[in-house]
Amino acid sequence: MAKVAVVLSGCGVYDGAEINEAVLTLLCLEQQGASYQCFAPDREQLHVINHLTGEPVEGETRNVLVEAARIARGNIKPLTDLDTADFDALLVPGGFGAAKNLCDFAVAGTEMTVQGDFLSIAQSFHQSGKPIGLVCIAPVMSAAICGAGTRCTIGDDAEVAAAINAMGGQHLACPVSEARVDAEKKLVTTPAYMLAGSVSEAYSGISACVKEVLALV
Amino acid sequence: MAKVAVVLSGCGVYDGAEINEAVLTLLCLEQQGASYQCFAPDREQLHVINHLTGEPVEGETRNVLVEAARIARGNIKPLTDLDTADFDALLVPGGFGAAKNLCDFAVAGTEMTVQGDFLSIAQSFHQSGKPIGLVCIAPVMSAAICGAGTRCTIGDDAEVAAAINAMGGQHLACPVSEARVDAEKKLVTTPAYMLAGSVSEAYSGISACVKEVLALV
Repeated sequence: MAKVAVVLSGCGVYDGAEINEAVLTLLCLEQQGASYQCFAPDREQLHVINHLTGEPVEGETRNVLVEAARIARGNIKPLTDLDTADFDALLVPGGFGAAKNLCDFAVAGTEMTVQGDFLSIAQSFHQSGKPIGLVCIAPVMSAAICGAGTRCTIGDDAEVAAAINAMGGQHLACPVSEARVDAEKKLVTTPAYMLAGSVSEAYSGISACVKEVLALV
Repeated sequence: MAKVAVVLSGCGVYDGAEINEAVLTLLCLEQQGASYQCFAPDREQLHVINHLTGEPVEGETRNVLVEAARIARGNIKPLTDLDTADFDALLVPGGFGAAKNLCDFAVAGTEMTVQGDFLSIAQSFHQSGKPIGLVCIAPVMSAAICGAGTRCTIGDDAEVAAAINAMGGQHLACPVSEARVDAEKKLVTTPAYMLAGSVSEAYSGISACVKEVLALV
């Protein structure tokens, strides 16, 4: 049974991990015979967003790990406890948390920096020849993790695709129900809520992504 | 296409709607051909619980509707906007939110009160002959909504089963992958995370619950 590390970035599409994507990732891993452990960085979120209004909440702080624990029902560990040797693959659901709390693409664009703790862990998976799956907006980190020329998808958003190319990646268009595989880099990506109009659409693409990741183990 | 109102009670198993149950309910509704709209009460949560430690967070308040909007990606309405005439059925995922923010079973036990706004809406569905699905701990409200003698399940927890019976319901044992139907009352219940040890186990029971609810429309 493949053991997969799932890195969450909070709890809620606008300031954390996209909740549907996170739950569907765990469901697909179980349905496809893999086991998993969730992790998240133990630091303050970049933002707290009121998900009813879409507006930032001034003066409130929330911790990425503590909020991600809501999705994981408390069964989650700090990212610093993630030992690459214990896992066969890495999966990262999307949501703005991936672009705010794992890197800062949401505010810095192509000048982004990937958080050092997450980058070193993701690069360790890559350098060990273990597959990585990045969902939704998380593929903006593809070249930073897997090197220049890495092929990936976020669907068909022209602006984000151009940013990926500008940062050294190679963007591939992809419909919501599919995933794209860079077999040489062992990187699998899927658009999920970059394109999905429903939970079941997100499920179809994440299911494909998980299948391709497990095939590369 | 059946239109289903889904009432959420926050975002997180210990103080709100159980996240997996909520997402899986929406997924199953889509997969089985129904449309839905999410609602939640616009009031403060009874508690804010740190989901990493399980401890209450003193001095912090969160709003049920604002937090539930995280699950619904902002596409949610206040419970007061729910007009029973617009919907064919009602579905309520579980989590402690159902027992803290829709009623107070978590703190008052058999002396519980169901929140007036939720009770009048749920009773309106029942009195209109429209089916109701209650998931996980939510079935403790079965008799309050559908009347004495209503048959329901929360799985096999002896203490909660006894409380259901003491409040005028009739508890039926049920494995995690099934649902129980009181056809006369048009009430469908399933244990979900009262028993589930995994996301896929919760999915199996919620899928059965949604199927039975839609069959009663």
